[in-house]
Amino acid sequence: MNLSEVSAPVAGTTVGEELHELVADLYPICTSITGDGLREMLRRIGTHVPLQVHEIPSGTQVFDWTIPREWNIRDAYVKDGLGNRVIDFGASNLHVVGYSTPIKTRMPLAELKEHLATIPEHPDWIPYRTSYYREAWGFCLSHDSLLGLEDGEYEVCIDTTLEDGHLSYGEYFLPGERDDEVLISTHVCHPSLANDNLSGVAVATLLARTLAEQPRRLSYRFLFLPGTIGSIAWLSQNQAGVSRIKHGLVLTCVGDSGNPTYKRSRRGNAEIDRAVEHVLAHSGGDYEVIDFSPYGYDERQYCSPGFDLPVGCFMRTPWGRYPEYHTSGDDLDFVRPEALADSLEKVLAALSVVKNDATYVNLNPYCEPQLGRRGLYRSTGGRKDESERELALLWVLNLSDSKHSLLDIAERSDLEFDVVRAAADTLLDHDLLEEVAG
Amino acid sequence: MNLSEVSAPVAGTTVGEELHELVADLYPICTSITGDGLREMLRRIGTHVPLQVHEIPSGTQVFDWTIPREWNIRDAYVKDGLGNRVIDFGASNLHVVGYSTPIKTRMPLAELKEHLATIPEHPDWIPYRTSYYREAWGFCLSHDSLLGLEDGEYEVCIDTTLEDGHLSYGEYFLPGERDDEVLISTHVCHPSLANDNLSGVAVATLLARTLAEQPRRLSYRFLFLPGTIGSIAWLSQNQAGVSRIKHGLVLTCVGDSGNPTYKRSRRGNAEIDRAVEHVLAHSGGDYEVIDFSPYGYDERQYCSPGFDLPVGCFMRTPWGRYPEYHTSGDDLDFVRPEALADSLEKVLAALSVVKNDATYVNLNPYCEPQLGRRGLYRSTGGRKDESERELALLWVLNLSDSKHSLLDIAERSDLEFDVVRAAADTLLDHDLLEEVAG
Amino acid sequence: MNLSEVSAPVAGTTVGEELHELVADLYPICTSITGDGLREMLRRIGTHVPLQVHEIPSGTQVFDWTIPREWNIRDAYVKDGLGNRVIDFGASNLHVVGYSTPIKTRMPLAELKEHLATIPEHPDWIPYRTSYYREAWGFCLSHDSLLGLEDGEYEVCIDTTLEDGHLSYGEYFLPGERDDEVLISTHVCHPSLANDNLSGVAVATLLARTLAEQPRRLSYRFLFLPGTIGSIAWLSQNQAGVSRIKHGLVLTCVGDSGNPTYKRSRRGNAEIDRAVEHVLAHSGGDYEVIDFSPYGYDERQYCSPGFDLPVGCFMRTPWGRYPEYHTSGDDLDFVRPEALADSLEKVLAALSVVKNDATYVNLNPYCEPQLGRRGLYRSTGGRKDESERELALLWVLNLSDSKHSLLDIAERSDLEFDVVRAAADTLLDHDLLEEVAG
Repeated sequence: MNLSEVSAPVAGTTVGEELHELVADLYPICTSITGDGLREMLRRIGTHVPLQVHEIPSGTQVFDWTIPREWNIRDAYVKDGLGNRVIDFGASNLHVVGYSTPIKTRMPLAELKEHLATIPEHPDWIPYRTSYYREAWGFCLSHDSLLGLEDGEYEVCIDTTLEDGHLSYGEYFLPGERDDEVLISTHVCHPSLANDNLSGVAVATLLARTLAEQPRRLSYRFLFLPGTIGSIAWLSQNQAGVSRIKHGLVLTCVGDSGNPTYKRSRRGNAEIDRAVEHVLAHSGGDYEVIDFSPYGYDERQYCSPGFDLPVGCFMRTPWGRYPEYHTSGDDLDFVRPEALADSLEKVLAALSVVKNDATYVNLNPYCEPQLGRRGLYRSTGGRKDESERELALLWVLNLSDSKHSLLDIAERSDLEFDVVRAAADTLLDHDLLEEVAG
Repeated sequence: MNLSEVSAPVAGTTVGEELHELVADLYPICTSITGDGLREMLRRIGTHVPLQVHEIPSGTQVFDWTIPREWNIRDAYVKDGLGNRVIDFGASNLHVVGYSTPIKTRMPLAELKEHLATIPEHPDWIPYRTSYYREAWGFCLSHDSLLGLEDGEYEVCIDTTLEDGHLSYGEYFLPGERDDEVLISTHVCHPSLANDNLSGVAVATLLARTLAEQPRRLSYRFLFLPGTIGSIAWLSQNQAGVSRIKHGLVLTCVGDSGNPTYKRSRRGNAEIDRAVEHVLAHSGGDYEVIDFSPYGYDERQYCSPGFDLPVGCFMRTPWGRYPEYHTSGDDLDFVRPEALADSLEKVLAALSVVKNDATYVNLNPYCEPQLGRRGLYRSTGGRKDESERELALLWVLNLSDSKHSLLDIAERSDLEFDVVRAAADTLLDHDLLEEVAG
Repeated sequence: MNLSEVSAPVAGTTVGEELHELVADLYPICTSITGDGLREMLRRIGTHVPLQVHEIPSGTQVFDWTIPREWNIRDAYVKDGLGNRVIDFGASNLHVVGYSTPIKTRMPLAELKEHLATIPEHPDWIPYRTSYYREAWGFCLSHDSLLGLEDGEYEVCIDTTLEDGHLSYGEYFLPGERDDEVLISTHVCHPSLANDNLSGVAVATLLARTLAEQPRRLSYRFLFLPGTIGSIAWLSQNQAGVSRIKHGLVLTCVGDSGNPTYKRSRRGNAEIDRAVEHVLAHSGGDYEVIDFSPYGYDERQYCSPGFDLPVGCFMRTPWGRYPEYHTSGDDLDFVRPEALADSLEKVLAALSVVKNDATYVNLNPYCEPQLGRRGLYRSTGGRKDESERELALLWVLNLSDSKHSLLDIAERSDLEFDVVRAAADTLLDHDLLEEVAG
């Protein structure tokens, strides 16, 4: 599968441009792990795919965690003695520490500074900070701005509410011929950070729309969740059904200009791990594959030992490895249409491998069948050239002993999966193979 | 085992020279996958080893294949307007496409050209082509000759017959103490190609003659077959007995000046695979070991999934990787006496490993036995030098726990198999080992 | 565990100095595999740890071997025609071939030379030689001295006795909470060779004293044995109990200035193998790990196939790889206080890993537990820095599925064992882990 199969974008734009426009559309929303910003985020995604939005009440126990109170923000600022807003939430969502408690008071600069975060190494970037599970308030600003603050009294206002409400998340289920599910999970809780993770949201959205328009052998489940608490909540409320998840990917940081990076599932050799690696290895470009570690995004929860689901993480430059990470530097210029499109294409290709893999038994296992008689083989012997197609036929025949899947064969033969799959289809057409019930 | 054990050549010639003379003797024969040329090939091999020649009637079903009609050729030529033979079968067997149907007619050059094959990159070489399973006729010629043909009418004559008859192959069985068999298979269907595969025929012939003169623990079966259809026919007619084949080698392209190449069996770690690799690794020379692929010579059939026999392929430069492959450039100068002799020596050495491997149990497993008391160990302690022989005794004692064969021990200790074998013999002489029935 | 936990040395000296002083104290003793020199060696070790000395009578059968007669030496010399001692046992224990039979006679230089050993490449060193199991006599001397001997008659005297007596060895057992034992074995039979093996004796002695002063989960058994025959005798007389040995190290050549070298047990992946490798890999210094071979010191016996105990060998430069090996060049200057101390520290660290390893099950296996609520996790999200401590908590939680030990987790996470152990302790304190009975 490739981009030509992606759900057709609006006339005159490329897939990459459409993805970037979606990122740009979501960029202004002040989303968080709960609240109306998050609801707005899900509503806009819902204009592209028919998302089902779930609401879980504050206080609900989800495994070891509790759904927190809902956070909403109307305004926030710091005013100097002249009444000028020296820090203004209206200018950037990142200026307020996420989940800041409400405050309205006056204080001298020295006291205020204890609540200010900057990045001295990148003095013009605003950092992104949250304090979900410890009550606190704070502002983030550029280091340059901090240096410009003069001694004196400041008026501090954070007009937020932190009250019982709900945690919201979006779910989109695409049934297929089989109950076996592919899980695609992406976090939607970061405001105004383009790569982390509006890029993941955009790619997941177009992926969902594309798969919705195709016949489906497998079922697909898309989760647009607040990070950590969202996946914990979903797993807690859907524990009985997780055994249907046969393959999964967390999508995050998929729009920067770095090479693709794949982080394996905890199992390390799950079919999704092998499929993504196969696609990357045959892509012709540089890439990196890294082992699972229990640090990162929601794969931490899917790969916790009680679940140990075959869920890997597809990224470009991994979180924390680029300086713009969790700063205002992660803006709309930082994500690139061609990188977004490439991520979507590679994820589609990996899901195509997973979908089309199967195991067969050669019905003519004693010596090779006479392919030439069936028009499947060149008729003139003695020539040096051999086509990849013929080689794939021979590999599939040789290894189809009910112990090797097509992906196994592709790996051992170093042929592309699609070539191996096509060879199997040809042999099936000639009654030379039979699928092994898996 | 080494060349000093090879069946003594005619006085005054080296083993390499004798092998090369055998190649030269077979070179003029116009052999094919059936017919009198093939019979003549087998007859001449039979002057060196008492070959049993089998004949399978045309039309016989052998698995998915059918024994084809028998092909014989008396003459073939293309004459120009002056009656000159511009292409003459008498000049080279390669001029006629193998299995060409009979024809006698006249045609203009343009029409004739559709039946002519050349190699533009090597304009003085004649290519080798066949059309066994699709009725067709054609000539092969040097590209220079093609360029010299002038427009006009040509007389075309291919005086062949394609009639019900037989497929012939030669078999030579050397019984040993055990029913366990070593299979040596080589194809005999290529006319006037020295490396592919008169080299294989010559090495197999001298190998057979050498083993015939030695006591044999294992049995050996030599097959001189037309490629593909020959091995398929043999497997089809001997299916019940193939389980006796414990080790096997296909011999092909063993005379060129390239380094030895070993292509593993489908199993990849069969004892023959490990034995050949051990011999090559300890040879002191460069070599290559490549994984099995279902493309090549008759190992394709022996390693088809229904059989999956432990049969590898010993070569020098693999088929298709040298420009002379399947051209008149693969002539008597292309194969070298010393390369032929080296191939024979290495195959003998690998078969010696296979023959002499065994698994033992140390009868004194608690601590080392006192080797010095038995005269097996230096009597003066404190000296730095330790002989390889003593080291081998200690390795065999340490690993002979019924789970490690001598080849396992040689691999782990990085000692040569012969040194390990000698150590085991010494320990057997002193009642310190007992063979494990395998 | 590190050197700060080592049994406190005498005030004003470092651990390395104390180790070197112990080597120096033992250096003059003319020890052998039996006899009063060996008894004196054990007596002096016994002044540091309460050694139990065992005596096995000559003639006792120990597996395939027999305890030899006891050897004692009073004097030995070669006198020239003027009565000058040109070789004098009083000057160096190495001058007499160990286990030399008594002799008192006169002979010409030519005849005497058959009994003289030198090292021509190092003309000022005296070699070390023994002849335990073949009756012989001889002298060792520097090659320079040999060249200085003039023709003529010499008086030869070796005043030794070789009579029924005993083989002595020392044992020190430190019981722990569990019967599972750690075996530390070191050979004490080499006279006046500092690195091989007074270094091993010194490190084993301080190791024993250190462990004696600590609470012990495991039991520890220290063996101070004559090489080969000593370990064979001990194994023969303690065969029933060897299954209690869960980990073991042979200590030898641990004082030279080379890098640490670890030779794996025959099993290759025993826990002690992995523990030592882990310590070396995280030490920050160069080191070498080599595979087991059945040549070396007493690991040969512990790793004989009937026992196959998990016993490796800790060294610095392996025996035979330094020119001073088994010569008078292996003197008190050749071993270095800091090398001795480093060896002790690394062995202590490896034993600490072995002692503290355990396997747990995460009691909250579905998703991560909320560490922040327990004060175990930073409260402000969005920051790039992550502490190794938090990472270790996550790794332990993720892999504690009853199938991974803490050492497994340390290896997979590339974290130091102590960090992983500390994380497990923290999680145990919060009732998040439970030990799996092993």
